[in-house]
Amino acid sequence: MGQASCKGLYQSLFDYKTEKYVIAKNKKVGLLYRLLQVSILTYLVVWVFLVKKSYQDTDTSLQSSIITKVKGVIFTNTSELGERLWDVADYVIPPQGENVFFVITNLIVTPNQRQETCAENESIPDAVCSEDSDCPPGEPVVAGNGVRTGRCLRAENMQRGTCEIFAWCPVETRSRPEKPLLGKAEDFTIYIKNFIRFPKFNFSKTNVLDTKDRAYLKSCRFGPKDPYCPIFRLGSVVRWTGSDFQEIALQGGVIGIQIEWDCDLDKAPSECNPRYYFSRLDRRFPGNSVSSGYNFRFAKYYRDEAGVEFRTLIKAYGIRFDVLVNGRVRLPWGGWAGPGPDRHVGRDPAIHLLAHPALSLSVLQAGKFNIIPTIINVGSGVALMGVGSFFCDLILIYLIKKSHFYRNKKFEEVRSGHPGNGKVTAEQLQNLQTVEA
Amino acid sequence: MGQASCKGLYQSLFDYKTEKYVIAKNKKVGLLYRLLQVSILTYLVVWVFLVKKSYQDTDTSLQSSIITKVKGVIFTNTSELGERLWDVADYVIPPQGENVFFVITNLIVTPNQRQETCAENESIPDAVCSEDSDCPPGEPVVAGNGVRTGRCLRAENMQRGTCEIFAWCPVETRSRPEKPLLGKAEDFTIYIKNFIRFPKFNFSKTNVLDTKDRAYLKSCRFGPKDPYCPIFRLGSVVRWTGSDFQEIALQGGVIGIQIEWDCDLDKAPSECNPRYYFSRLDRRFPGNSVSSGYNFRFAKYYRDEAGVEFRTLIKAYGIRFDVLVNGRVRLPWGGWAGPGPDRHVGRDPAIHLLAHPALSLSVLQAGKFNIIPTIINVGSGVALMGVGSFFCDLILIYLIKKSHFYRNKKFEEVRSGHPGNGKVTAEQLQNLQTVEA
Amino acid sequence: MGQASCKGLYQSLFDYKTEKYVIAKNKKVGLLYRLLQVSILTYLVVWVFLVKKSYQDTDTSLQSSIITKVKGVIFTNTSELGERLWDVADYVIPPQGENVFFVITNLIVTPNQRQETCAENESIPDAVCSEDSDCPPGEPVVAGNGVRTGRCLRAENMQRGTCEIFAWCPVETRSRPEKPLLGKAEDFTIYIKNFIRFPKFNFSKTNVLDTKDRAYLKSCRFGPKDPYCPIFRLGSVVRWTGSDFQEIALQGGVIGIQIEWDCDLDKAPSECNPRYYFSRLDRRFPGNSVSSGYNFRFAKYYRDEAGVEFRTLIKAYGIRFDVLVNGRVRLPWGGWAGPGPDRHVGRDPAIHLLAHPALSLSVLQAGKFNIIPTIINVGSGVALMGVGSFFCDLILIYLIKKSHFYRNKKFEEVRSGHPGNGKVTAEQLQNLQTVEA
Repeated sequence: MGQASCKGLYQSLFDYKTEKYVIAKNKKVGLLYRLLQVSILTYLVVWVFLVKKSYQDTDTSLQSSIITKVKGVIFTNTSELGERLWDVADYVIPPQGENVFFVITNLIVTPNQRQETCAENESIPDAVCSEDSDCPPGEPVVAGNGVRTGRCLRAENMQRGTCEIFAWCPVETRSRPEKPLLGKAEDFTIYIKNFIRFPKFNFSKTNVLDTKDRAYLKSCRFGPKDPYCPIFRLGSVVRWTGSDFQEIALQGGVIGIQIEWDCDLDKAPSECNPRYYFSRLDRRFPGNSVSSGYNFRFAKYYRDEAGVEFRTLIKAYGIRFDVLVNGRVRLPWGGWAGPGPDRHVGRDPAIHLLAHPALSLSVLQAGKFNIIPTIINVGSGVALMGVGSFFCDLILIYLIKKSHFYRNKKFEEVRSGHPGNGKVTAEQLQNLQTVEA
Repeated sequence: MGQASCKGLYQSLFDYKTEKYVIAKNKKVGLLYRLLQVSILTYLVVWVFLVKKSYQDTDTSLQSSIITKVKGVIFTNTSELGERLWDVADYVIPPQGENVFFVITNLIVTPNQRQETCAENESIPDAVCSEDSDCPPGEPVVAGNGVRTGRCLRAENMQRGTCEIFAWCPVETRSRPEKPLLGKAEDFTIYIKNFIRFPKFNFSKTNVLDTKDRAYLKSCRFGPKDPYCPIFRLGSVVRWTGSDFQEIALQGGVIGIQIEWDCDLDKAPSECNPRYYFSRLDRRFPGNSVSSGYNFRFAKYYRDEAGVEFRTLIKAYGIRFDVLVNGRVRLPWGGWAGPGPDRHVGRDPAIHLLAHPALSLSVLQAGKFNIIPTIINVGSGVALMGVGSFFCDLILIYLIKKSHFYRNKKFEEVRSGHPGNGKVTAEQLQNLQTVEA
Repeated sequence: MGQASCKGLYQSLFDYKTEKYVIAKNKKVGLLYRLLQVSILTYLVVWVFLVKKSYQDTDTSLQSSIITKVKGVIFTNTSELGERLWDVADYVIPPQGENVFFVITNLIVTPNQRQETCAENESIPDAVCSEDSDCPPGEPVVAGNGVRTGRCLRAENMQRGTCEIFAWCPVETRSRPEKPLLGKAEDFTIYIKNFIRFPKFNFSKTNVLDTKDRAYLKSCRFGPKDPYCPIFRLGSVVRWTGSDFQEIALQGGVIGIQIEWDCDLDKAPSECNPRYYFSRLDRRFPGNSVSSGYNFRFAKYYRDEAGVEFRTLIKAYGIRFDVLVNGRVRLPWGGWAGPGPDRHVGRDPAIHLLAHPALSLSVLQAGKFNIIPTIINVGSGVALMGVGSFFCDLILIYLIKKSHFYRNKKFEEVRSGHPGNGKVTAEQLQNLQTVEA
């Protein structure tokens, strides 16, 4: 019999087993089930495939490089600094033209500081003294500019004074100008060059328009009318973030310029253009005045004829720009045949694939990557139909009027072990017959 | 007949087809199946939905901006530099207060370097010579400071000397101080302002406590007792990474300060607070002494009265801080109604949605994004139940005692191929009967 | 009856319901279904688990720290600058040795600029004038160096001249040298130290070879023969990107150095080594000459004896290097027992787990993270089998010759409403007949 069973197993290996269905002639439940089916299919086709384009391979690993260049000059004439012209080398820090740069818009200059002793700034609480013993020598002033020498400097007839300190003297005492010194920085321009490359598809692009017209890049300004010009007016950028330029110029702030690439390689590369978003990154929170503004101190060091070092301390207020890039490129399945000669790569993709085994591997891999999400999406959609059947079954066998009847039809109760009660006997008889057949 | 079939198809379109089940009155297999069902349901409900909160929409695309400010002064008195006070403009490089900054803790100063000829540093192997022919003119010294002039400089009565070079002279010869010059930098403080924004939800926050008490931010220090104070003592930060401050101050190192935001918008925004993690990024590997420490050289350039340039070369050892931010915000489905007026946005979200079509689009999209993972999770859980049935079926029809009986009940064998033997007729008869009934 | 139903429900709770199957003895459809089953199983086992290694836990959240150091000197002798030696402090900007740094390869020096009046550069279109009224005083020259004073400076007998401006005078007039001044920068070396750490697994590594041989790191150069040496020759790096060094040295450019870590903790940590990729980030686009090159201006500030500031303006052309790191580590399930003593952590992982509760938690969580994708992959694969059955069913009941017969067997039509009409009897009768046939 084991042999017979084995033979039977082999024979039945290619039998096709299919679920037995009971057709319930119930229009309501039938309609409900069809509706569920259509919904799930619609979700799969419309949302997962058409809207989310799950059939496309997406690459978000972006190589990006940014070069920035600020232009503009400002002439100022103050009692403190005299006539002075400010150019890029003066007001952009650091000068390298990277993706993060700072433009000075306001400043406090403290020239000719030397290492010597002087009175500490009166506005520092820790420096206030009434006699020498309030100034323990060698101890630094908390949040101050130097270490105490041990003397308390008081003006004549005054009860209180400030400790004498050893520091870069004289210390900074001026307060922030009430009007930004370089308020005209509004008219400066930023030229942002952004080069991107999606390594998986070897697709490169730049945000600088591929134009023969050199004059265009000298005169254009980014704006709603000119969305592909890479030159930005400082004042406009600040305005687009919803801030007031004179206010940010006075106290300083941080502005984010986000460049977003969303390229569909189904279309021509010339339609792959960046979008720019501007936002103020150092949000000002109401009632949180402590955290507003952006400033820092730096110094220029000099030596006099005697070789003694002195410096000019500058407290700079201004705008820091953070240029960020993100993007993704979408390639349809088999899409290498698509874009054709005007793709930047400039070679037939098939040749490219053959010429670079490593690349072709990565492209294949990219394609395969796509299979898993597709299967997952389809598979789970199909599984959801099972949930649909489950609910319809519940209604059919429990909730409708004739549910008892359908329940008996759907479920065929079998019981082994109580031979002798008519029903099972008939079944077993039939079993017996089947086996005999 | 084709017409009849068409009509039948139309009629049966809303029939509900449901699988026919065989009820096996076997408690063991039944129990096993229920256990599997309960496990999968528990996994879905507890793990996928409650723990992983898959029903929530998660946004990890964070806009972040960091402003740092170091404070503190140090007084040093060395034979080399004399009395000197070091303030922020002296020891922080670069001065801009970005997320990466360097604090000098130790340094070698080589003042008054000029472009002229002098002897190369004796410790450089390539510069050692015994006669002029060892110093081919015009050739740079490997890993050295200049180009050879062709002369070998030897002290009297000495066999060996070093090549004369044209370089910034005198060359740097001092070795690293054995005690960090600015070892007191331990007491410096770093004030880190971090502004974040999750653009998808337009949710903004800062790590600076929203307090009216200005004095708090002047005196607080971050620590276990004060986890929301944004001011960090340098020495403590180094200690928390498990390093010794005097050792890192001597040789230099890189320390990472990670700010992590994990905001659940189910709760009040005031409960969305950052957590800070400190780690030493330039791990020291045992027996890999070459790669330890962090230092670099920079110069301050001067001109004398004759207009000739000279410089002070500084080899700076110190600590580089890399402040990194990452985070995610979780929004429950329909959660816009939740947080209410104390959300920073400060407007009714519904109004906000209507007022900004672009935003409302992105929010909707955010919501939809969530449908796909939910369906995938539920769908694959349901599919897993199929795996459960499969195993229970295997047991039922192969492994238990009465399996033969159940096998016959479960599988109804049909065979076509004997037309005319009345079987099909009988079926069609029965069909007829069904329709008539 | 409700009570009876309740009791029945309880009794039937542990009944096992299994689908009733119809065995269709059709070899073609059976074979097709088996093929589909085998394909899906193969996909799951081979692709999802063996190739994609879904059973492994992957961590791509990388902590990375980079320290760079450029070495090399160049001697130049030009009419303009005289004899001069360039060392690291002169040509690397910024000096800190971060992951982004710039090496000057060509420059235009404009020394001794002072704040005064002079003629604007003739090549600026906006500065050309023929009489004083062409130079409205106080107005800045567009894309120029200063503000107009109101005078038009013309050489004798010339019709046209340029406006006088107040600026840093004299203005920069020299054009870019036709041969890069520091063309020998080709021989400079970059030493890149990269420390990585995967926090989830507490796995650390550096790209600096763990060698006792200090001389190795002084003499080795990265290349195909020496893929683990962290010292790179500038000229080679540029060549590997497909660019010509002298051309990039002349105009400037941006080069990306990508360090990629792909560590499989199944293997020994010594097999976890970085791979380096070099690419030119500022792609040159044909016919887009405007966007080529990389340069910026910076100034060195001096004071003369009278305390008047003057400066040397430098327009620097050169190569910016962006060092980027990405990586992932893969840990097999239960893989902590694997790597053994030569893992860097240097402790028994089990002990490690016990000693650091927080870490052990994160490791466990990492493991759990993996369950969801596994279930999703298996679940959707199983669901796909349902799609297979669906297609085979379609063929069986619509497309083959005997489809009508199988359709009637698969679907059992039931109709409620005429209880007691002998229909069920007829079916059972028919069953009996089928068996007899």
